[in-house]
Amino acid sequence: MGRWEPNARGRLEQAALDLYSERGFEQTTAAQIAQRAGLTERTFFRHYADKREVLFGGASQLEEAFVAALAATPVTAAPIDAMASTLETIATFFLERHEFARQRQAVIMASAELRERELIKLASLAAALAATLRRRGVQEPAASLTAEAGIAVFKIGFERWVGENGERALAEFLRESLDELKVVAGSDRGGRGRS
Amino acid sequence: MGRWEPNARGRLEQAALDLYSERGFEQTTAAQIAQRAGLTERTFFRHYADKREVLFGGASQLEEAFVAALAATPVTAAPIDAMASTLETIATFFLERHEFARQRQAVIMASAELRERELIKLASLAAALAATLRRRGVQEPAASLTAEAGIAVFKIGFERWVGENGERALAEFLRESLDELKVVAGSDRGGRGRS
Repeated sequence: MGRWEPNARGRLEQAALDLYSERGFEQTTAAQIAQRAGLTERTFFRHYADKREVLFGGASQLEEAFVAALAATPVTAAPIDAMASTLETIATFFLERHEFARQRQAVIMASAELRERELIKLASLAAALAATLRRRGVQEPAASLTAEAGIAVFKIGFERWVGENGERALAEFLRESLDELKVVAGSDRGGRGRS
Repeated sequence: MGRWEPNARGRLEQAALDLYSERGFEQTTAAQIAQRAGLTERTFFRHYADKREVLFGGASQLEEAFVAALAATPVTAAPIDAMASTLETIATFFLERHEFARQRQAVIMASAELRERELIKLASLAAALAATLRRRGVQEPAASLTAEAGIAVFKIGFERWVGENGERALAEFLRESLDELKVVAGSDRGGRGRS
Protein backbone atom coordinates (compact mmCIF):
# COMPACT_ATOMS: atom_id res chain seq x y z
CA MET A 1 0.00 0.00 0.00
CA GLY A 2 1.85 3.10 1.13
CA ARG A 3 5.10 1.20 1.64
CA TRP A 4 8.18 1.74 -0.47
CA GLU A 5 8.22 -0.43 -3.58
CA PRO A 6 11.75 -0.70 -4.93
CA ASN A 7 11.80 0.01 -8.68
CA ALA A 8 8.04 -0.43 -9.00
CA ARG A 9 7.95 1.20 -12.44
CA GLY A 10 10.63 -1.06 -13.86
CA ARG A 11 9.02 -4.18 -12.36
CA LEU A 12 5.60 -3.23 -13.75
CA GLU A 13 7.13 -2.51 -17.13
CA GLN A 14 8.88 -5.87 -17.35
CA ALA A 15 5.84 -7.77 -16.02
CA ALA A 16 3.60 -6.04 -18.60
CA LEU A 17 5.98 -6.84 -21.42
CA ASP A 18 6.20 -10.47 -20.39
CA LEU A 19 2.42 -10.83 -20.18
CA TYR A 20 1.81 -9.00 -23.46
CA SER A 21 4.33 -11.31 -25.12
CA GLU A 22 2.82 -14.44 -23.59
CA ARG A 23 -0.90 -13.80 -23.99
CA GLY A 24 -1.25 -10.64 -26.08
CA PHE A 25 -1.82 -7.00 -25.20
CA GLU A 26 -5.62 -7.13 -25.53
CA GLN A 27 -5.87 -10.18 -23.24
CA THR A 28 -3.86 -8.70 -20.37
CA THR A 29 -5.31 -6.60 -17.53
CA ALA A 30 -3.65 -4.08 -15.21
CA ALA A 31 -4.50 -6.36 -12.25
CA GLN A 32 -2.58 -9.24 -13.85
CA ILE A 33 0.42 -7.02 -14.50
CA ALA A 34 0.46 -5.84 -10.89
CA GLN A 35 0.16 -9.41 -9.64
CA ARG A 36 3.01 -10.63 -11.86
CA ALA A 37 5.17 -7.78 -10.58
CA GLY A 38 4.27 -8.63 -6.97
CA LEU A 39 2.57 -5.27 -6.52
CA THR A 40 -0.97 -4.06 -5.99
CA GLU A 41 -3.27 -2.75 -8.71
CA ARG A 42 -3.31 0.54 -6.81
CA THR A 43 0.46 0.76 -7.22
CA PHE A 44 0.03 0.08 -10.93
CA PHE A 45 -2.29 3.04 -11.32
CA ARG A 46 -0.02 5.27 -9.26
CA HIS A 47 2.59 4.78 -11.98
CA TYR A 48 0.61 4.38 -15.20
CA ALA A 49 -2.71 5.77 -16.45
CA ASP A 50 -3.54 2.52 -18.25
CA LYS A 51 -1.98 -0.66 -19.59
CA ARG A 52 -1.06 1.00 -22.89
CA GLU A 53 1.01 3.67 -21.20
CA VAL A 54 3.28 1.07 -19.61
CA LEU A 55 4.81 0.71 -23.06
CA PHE A 56 5.05 4.46 -23.59
CA GLY A 57 6.12 5.59 -20.15
CA GLY A 58 9.52 6.47 -21.56
CA ALA A 59 8.18 8.48 -24.50
CA SER A 60 8.29 11.90 -22.88
CA GLN A 61 11.78 11.23 -21.45
CA LEU A 62 12.91 10.14 -24.89
CA GLU A 63 11.51 13.34 -26.39
CA GLU A 64 13.20 15.45 -23.73
CA ALA A 65 16.46 13.63 -24.35
CA PHE A 66 16.17 14.17 -28.11
CA VAL A 67 15.47 17.88 -27.69
CA ALA A 68 18.25 18.33 -25.12
CA ALA A 69 20.77 16.49 -27.30
CA LEU A 70 19.85 18.54 -30.34
CA ALA A 71 19.91 21.81 -28.39
CA ALA A 72 23.39 20.93 -27.07
CA THR A 73 24.98 20.65 -30.52
CA PRO A 74 26.90 23.71 -31.78
CA VAL A 75 24.57 26.18 -33.49
CA THR A 76 27.14 26.47 -36.26
CA ALA A 77 26.65 22.79 -37.19
CA ALA A 78 24.64 22.08 -40.33
CA PRO A 79 21.18 20.80 -39.28
CA ILE A 80 21.84 17.29 -40.59
CA ASP A 81 25.13 17.12 -38.66
CA ALA A 82 23.35 18.30 -35.52
CA MET A 83 20.83 15.51 -36.13
CA ALA A 84 23.62 12.95 -36.61
CA SER A 85 25.14 13.99 -33.30
CA THR A 86 21.73 13.84 -31.62
CA LEU A 87 21.17 10.28 -32.84
CA GLU A 88 24.60 9.29 -31.45
CA THR A 89 23.58 10.62 -28.05
CA ILE A 90 20.17 8.96 -28.13
CA ALA A 91 21.72 5.62 -29.05
CA THR A 92 23.55 5.57 -25.71
CA PHE A 93 20.19 5.39 -23.92
CA PHE A 94 19.61 2.00 -25.51
CA LEU A 95 22.87 0.35 -24.50
CA GLU A 96 22.04 -2.92 -22.70
CA ARG A 97 18.41 -2.48 -23.79
CA HIS A 98 18.35 -4.66 -26.91
CA GLU A 99 16.34 -7.54 -25.45
CA PHE A 100 13.85 -5.14 -23.88
CA ALA A 101 13.52 -3.16 -27.11
CA ARG A 102 13.10 -6.34 -29.16
CA GLN A 103 10.33 -7.62 -26.90
CA ARG A 104 8.58 -4.23 -26.85
CA GLN A 105 8.72 -3.88 -30.63
CA ALA A 106 7.17 -7.35 -31.12
CA VAL A 107 4.30 -6.45 -28.78
CA ILE A 108 3.71 -3.15 -30.56
CA MET A 109 3.79 -4.62 -34.06
CA ALA A 110 1.15 -7.19 -33.00
CA SER A 111 -1.47 -4.55 -32.11
CA ALA A 112 -3.02 -1.91 -34.37
CA GLU A 113 -3.78 0.27 -31.34
CA LEU A 114 -0.16 0.17 -30.19
CA ARG A 115 1.21 0.79 -33.68
CA GLU A 116 -0.95 3.93 -33.80
CA ARG A 117 0.34 5.06 -30.42
CA GLU A 118 3.90 4.53 -31.66
CA LEU A 119 3.19 6.66 -34.75
CA ILE A 120 1.92 9.44 -32.51
CA LYS A 121 5.08 9.20 -30.42
CA LEU A 122 7.29 9.53 -33.50
CA ALA A 123 5.23 12.41 -34.94
CA SER A 124 5.49 14.23 -31.63
CA LEU A 125 9.26 13.67 -31.62
CA ALA A 126 9.58 15.06 -35.16
CA ALA A 127 7.53 18.14 -34.24
CA ALA A 128 9.68 18.76 -31.14
CA LEU A 129 12.89 18.46 -33.15
CA ALA A 130 11.60 20.80 -35.86
CA ALA A 131 10.68 23.37 -33.20
CA THR A 132 14.17 23.04 -31.67
CA LEU A 133 15.79 23.64 -35.06
CA ARG A 134 13.59 26.68 -35.70
CA ARG A 135 14.67 28.12 -32.36
CA ARG A 136 18.26 27.81 -33.62
CA GLY A 137 17.37 29.87 -36.68
CA VAL A 138 16.85 27.05 -39.19
CA GLN A 139 14.22 28.15 -41.70
CA GLU A 140 11.23 26.19 -42.90
CA PRO A 141 10.91 23.83 -44.70
CA ALA A 142 14.51 22.86 -43.84
CA ALA A 143 13.71 22.52 -40.11
CA SER A 144 10.75 20.18 -40.63
CA LEU A 145 12.48 18.19 -43.35
CA THR A 146 15.60 17.68 -41.22
CA ALA A 147 13.44 16.62 -38.28
CA GLU A 148 11.36 14.22 -40.38
CA ALA A 149 14.51 12.82 -41.96
CA GLY A 150 16.07 12.35 -38.53
CA ILE A 151 13.03 10.51 -37.23
CA ALA A 152 12.84 8.35 -40.36
CA VAL A 153 16.49 7.41 -39.81
CA PHE A 154 15.78 6.70 -36.13
CA LYS A 155 12.70 4.56 -36.94
CA ILE A 156 14.34 2.52 -39.66
CA GLY A 157 17.69 2.15 -37.90
CA PHE A 158 15.90 1.15 -34.70
CA GLU A 159 13.77 -1.47 -36.47
CA ARG A 160 16.87 -2.96 -38.08
CA TRP A 161 18.73 -3.01 -34.77
CA VAL A 162 15.80 -4.72 -33.05
CA GLY A 163 15.58 -7.24 -35.90
CA GLU A 164 19.16 -8.40 -35.37
CA ASN A 165 20.75 -10.20 -32.47
CA GLY A 166 22.03 -7.19 -30.55
CA GLU A 167 25.74 -7.73 -31.18
CA ARG A 168 26.03 -4.45 -33.07
CA ALA A 169 25.06 -1.29 -31.20
CA LEU A 170 22.10 0.88 -32.16
CA ALA A 171 24.49 3.74 -32.94
CA GLU A 172 25.91 1.75 -35.85
CA PHE A 173 22.48 1.15 -37.35
CA LEU A 174 21.55 4.80 -37.00
CA ARG A 175 24.79 5.87 -38.65
CA GLU A 176 24.27 3.43 -41.51
CA SER A 177 20.69 4.59 -42.04
CA LEU A 178 21.72 8.24 -42.06
CA ASP A 179 24.53 7.53 -44.51
CA GLU A 180 22.09 5.61 -46.69
CA LEU A 181 19.62 8.51 -46.60
CA LYS A 182 22.40 10.84 -47.75
CA VAL A 183 23.23 8.50 -50.63
CA VAL A 184 19.55 8.13 -51.55
CA ALA A 185 18.80 11.86 -51.39
CA GLY A 186 22.04 12.75 -53.11
CA SER A 187 21.60 10.70 -56.27
CA ASP A 188 20.28 13.60 -58.31
CA ARG A 189 22.25 16.53 -56.98
CA GLY A 190 22.70 19.60 -59.06
CA GLY A 191 19.57 19.41 -61.16
CA ARG A 192 16.07 18.14 -61.30
CA GLY A 193 16.69 15.92 -64.34
CA ARG A 194 13.30 15.36 -65.89
CA SER A 195 12.30 18.99 -66.44
CA MET B 1 -34.32 5.24 -50.60
CA GLY B 2 -33.16 3.00 -53.43
CA ARG B 3 -33.27 5.83 -55.96
CA TRP B 4 -30.24 7.14 -57.75
CA GLU B 5 -28.47 9.91 -55.86
CA PRO B 6 -26.29 11.91 -58.22
CA ASN B 7 -22.78 12.31 -56.74
CA ALA B 8 -23.93 11.29 -53.25
CA ARG B 9 -20.36 10.71 -52.05
CA GLY B 10 -19.17 14.13 -53.15
CA ARG B 11 -22.22 15.85 -51.66
CA LEU B 12 -21.79 14.03 -48.33
CA GLU B 13 -18.10 14.88 -48.32
CA GLN B 14 -18.69 18.60 -48.87
CA ALA B 15 -21.58 18.71 -46.37
CA ALA B 16 -19.42 16.97 -43.74
CA LEU B 17 -16.53 19.34 -44.32
CA ASP B 18 -18.81 22.38 -44.04
CA LEU B 19 -20.38 21.13 -40.81
CA TYR B 20 -17.03 20.13 -39.30
CA SER B 21 -15.70 23.60 -40.12
CA GLU B 22 -18.77 25.36 -38.71
CA ARG B 23 -19.39 23.42 -35.50
CA GLY B 24 -16.47 21.03 -35.08
CA PHE B 25 -15.94 17.36 -35.90
CA GLU B 26 -16.97 16.05 -32.47
CA GLN B 27 -20.22 18.04 -32.49
CA THR B 28 -21.43 16.80 -35.87
CA THR B 29 -23.50 13.63 -36.45
CA ALA B 30 -23.91 11.47 -39.55
CA ALA B 31 -27.62 12.37 -39.57
CA GLN B 32 -26.79 16.08 -39.75
CA ILE B 33 -24.37 15.50 -42.60
CA ALA B 34 -26.96 13.53 -44.56
CA GLN B 35 -29.57 16.24 -43.96
CA ARG B 36 -27.22 19.02 -45.08
CA ALA B 37 -26.47 17.03 -48.25
CA GLY B 38 -30.19 16.48 -48.88
CA LEU B 39 -29.79 12.72 -48.46
CA THR B 40 -30.94 10.10 -45.97
CA GLU B 41 -28.84 8.74 -43.12
CA ARG B 42 -29.15 5.33 -44.77
CA THR B 43 -27.48 6.76 -47.88
CA PHE B 44 -24.70 8.14 -45.68
CA PHE B 45 -23.94 4.72 -44.27
CA ARG B 46 -24.07 3.13 -47.71
CA HIS B 47 -21.11 5.32 -48.60
CA TYR B 48 -19.16 5.72 -45.35
CA ALA B 49 -18.64 3.50 -42.31
CA ASP B 50 -18.66 6.52 -39.96
CA LYS B 51 -18.25 10.27 -39.90
CA ARG B 52 -14.47 10.03 -39.61
CA GLU B 53 -14.17 8.07 -42.83
CA VAL B 54 -15.84 10.86 -44.83
CA LEU B 55 -12.51 12.66 -44.50
CA PHE B 56 -10.48 9.59 -45.44
CA GLY B 57 -12.64 8.15 -48.19
CA GLY B 58 -9.95 9.07 -50.69
CA ALA B 59 -7.07 7.52 -48.73
CA SER B 60 -7.06 4.13 -50.44
CA GLN B 61 -7.39 5.76 -53.88
CA LEU B 62 -4.50 8.05 -53.02
CA GLU B 63 -2.41 5.06 -51.95
CA GLU B 64 -3.29 3.19 -55.16
CA ALA B 65 -2.40 6.26 -57.20
CA PHE B 66 0.94 6.62 -55.38
CA VAL B 67 1.82 2.98 -55.91
CA ALA B 68 0.71 3.01 -59.58
CA ALA B 69 2.68 6.21 -60.28
CA LEU B 70 5.81 4.81 -58.65
CA ALA B 71 5.46 1.46 -60.40
CA ALA B 72 5.12 3.28 -63.75
CA THR B 73 8.50 5.04 -63.47
CA PRO B 74 11.43 3.44 -65.33
CA VAL B 75 13.12 0.77 -63.20
CA THR B 76 16.44 2.26 -64.23
CA ALA B 77 15.59 5.53 -62.44
CA ALA B 78 17.32 6.17 -59.12
CA PRO B 79 14.77 5.65 -56.31
CA ILE B 80 14.72 9.34 -55.39
CA ASP B 81 14.10 10.30 -59.03
CA ALA B 82 11.29 7.74 -59.23
CA MET B 83 9.87 9.35 -56.10
CA ALA B 84 10.17 12.85 -57.60
CA SER B 85 8.28 11.70 -60.67
CA THR B 86 5.65 10.02 -58.47
CA LEU B 87 5.08 13.25 -56.53
CA GLU B 88 4.64 15.15 -59.82
CA THR B 89 1.92 12.70 -60.84
CA ILE B 90 0.20 12.81 -57.47
CA ALA B 91 0.16 16.61 -57.52
CA THR B 92 -2.09 16.53 -60.59
CA PHE B 93 -4.81 14.88 -58.47
CA PHE B 94 -4.99 18.04 -56.40
CA LEU B 95 -5.44 20.54 -59.21
CA GLU B 96 -8.56 22.64 -58.48
CA ARG B 97 -8.65 21.08 -55.00
CA HIS B 98 -6.87 23.77 -52.99
CA GLU B 99 -9.93 25.12 -51.19
CA PHE B 100 -11.15 21.63 -50.37
CA ALA B 101 -7.70 20.58 -49.13
CA ARG B 102 -7.36 23.75 -47.04
CA GLN B 103 -10.72 23.19 -45.39
CA ARG B 104 -10.01 19.49 -44.77
CA GLN B 105 -6.58 20.22 -43.27
CA ALA B 106 -8.05 22.78 -40.85
CA VAL B 107 -10.64 20.25 -39.67
CA ILE B 108 -8.00 17.56 -39.21
CA MET B 109 -5.57 19.78 -37.33
CA ALA B 110 -8.36 20.72 -34.88
CA SER B 111 -8.95 17.14 -33.71
CA ALA B 112 -6.47 14.76 -32.04
CA GLU B 113 -8.44 11.77 -33.30
CA LEU B 114 -8.28 13.01 -36.90
CA ARG B 115 -4.59 13.89 -36.66
CA GLU B 116 -3.94 10.29 -35.56
CA ARG B 117 -5.97 8.94 -38.47
CA GLU B 118 -3.94 11.14 -40.82
CA LEU B 119 -0.69 9.78 -39.38
CA ILE B 120 -1.92 6.24 -40.01
CA LYS B 121 -2.75 7.17 -43.60
CA LEU B 122 0.74 8.56 -44.17
CA ALA B 123 2.44 5.57 -42.50
CA SER B 124 0.42 3.22 -44.68
CA LEU B 125 1.44 5.22 -47.76
CA ALA B 126 5.12 5.01 -46.79
CA ALA B 127 4.88 1.25 -46.25
CA ALA B 128 3.19 0.77 -49.64
CA LEU B 129 5.86 2.84 -51.40
CA ALA B 130 8.68 0.94 -49.67
CA ALA B 131 7.12 -2.38 -50.75
CA THR B 132 6.85 -1.08 -54.33
CA LEU B 133 10.52 -0.10 -54.33
CA ARG B 134 11.54 -3.50 -52.96
CA ARG B 135 9.62 -5.19 -55.76
CA ARG B 136 11.78 -3.17 -58.18
CA GLY B 137 14.91 -4.54 -56.57
CA VAL B 138 15.74 -1.63 -54.26
CA GLN B 139 17.44 -3.01 -51.16
CA GLU B 140 16.72 -2.16 -47.54
CA PRO B 141 17.20 0.25 -45.87
CA ALA B 142 17.28 2.34 -49.08
CA ALA B 143 13.70 1.36 -49.99
CA SER B 144 12.23 2.37 -46.63
CA LEU B 145 14.33 5.51 -46.38
CA THR B 146 13.35 6.67 -49.86
CA ALA B 147 9.69 5.98 -49.09
CA GLU B 148 9.84 7.81 -45.75
CA ALA B 149 11.68 10.71 -47.36
CA GLY B 150 9.09 10.86 -50.14
CA ILE B 151 6.22 10.94 -47.66
CA ALA B 152 7.97 13.56 -45.53
CA VAL B 153 8.34 15.70 -48.65
CA PHE B 154 4.69 15.11 -49.52
CA LYS B 155 3.50 15.96 -46.00
CA ILE B 156 5.55 19.12 -45.65
CA GLY B 157 5.01 20.32 -49.21
CA PHE B 158 1.29 19.66 -48.86
CA GLU B 159 1.04 21.59 -45.58
CA ARG B 160 2.87 24.54 -47.12
CA TRP B 161 0.62 24.49 -50.20
CA VAL B 162 -2.50 24.38 -48.02
CA GLY B 163 -1.14 27.24 -45.91
CA GLU B 164 -0.86 29.56 -48.91
CA ASN B 165 -3.55 31.04 -51.12
CA GLY B 166 -3.56 28.39 -53.85
CA GLU B 167 -1.99 30.50 -56.60
CA ARG B 168 1.03 28.23 -56.83
CA ALA B 169 0.37 24.58 -57.66
CA LEU B 170 1.06 21.73 -55.23
CA ALA B 171 3.67 20.37 -57.66
CA GLU B 172 5.83 23.43 -57.03
CA PHE B 173 5.74 22.97 -53.28
CA LEU B 174 6.58 19.29 -53.57
CA ARG B 175 9.50 20.07 -55.88
CA GLU B 176 10.80 22.75 -53.51
CA SER B 177 10.53 20.43 -50.52
CA LEU B 178 12.34 17.64 -52.32
CA ASP B 179 15.09 20.01 -53.42
CA GLU B 180 15.38 21.27 -49.86
CA LEU B 181 15.63 17.71 -48.54
CA LYS B 182 18.47 17.08 -50.99
CA VAL B 183 20.28 20.19 -49.79
CA VAL B 184 19.69 19.28 -46.15
CA ALA B 185 20.78 15.66 -46.53
CA GLY B 186 23.67 16.60 -48.76
CA SER B 187 25.41 19.04 -46.45
CA ASP B 188 27.86 16.47 -45.12
CA ARG B 189 28.53 14.31 -48.15
CA GLY B 190 31.69 12.29 -48.36
CA GLY B 191 32.36 11.89 -44.66
CA ARG B 192 30.80 11.71 -41.28
CA GLY B 193 32.68 14.72 -39.97
CA ARG B 194 32.73 14.36 -36.21
CA SER B 195 34.35 10.90 -35.99
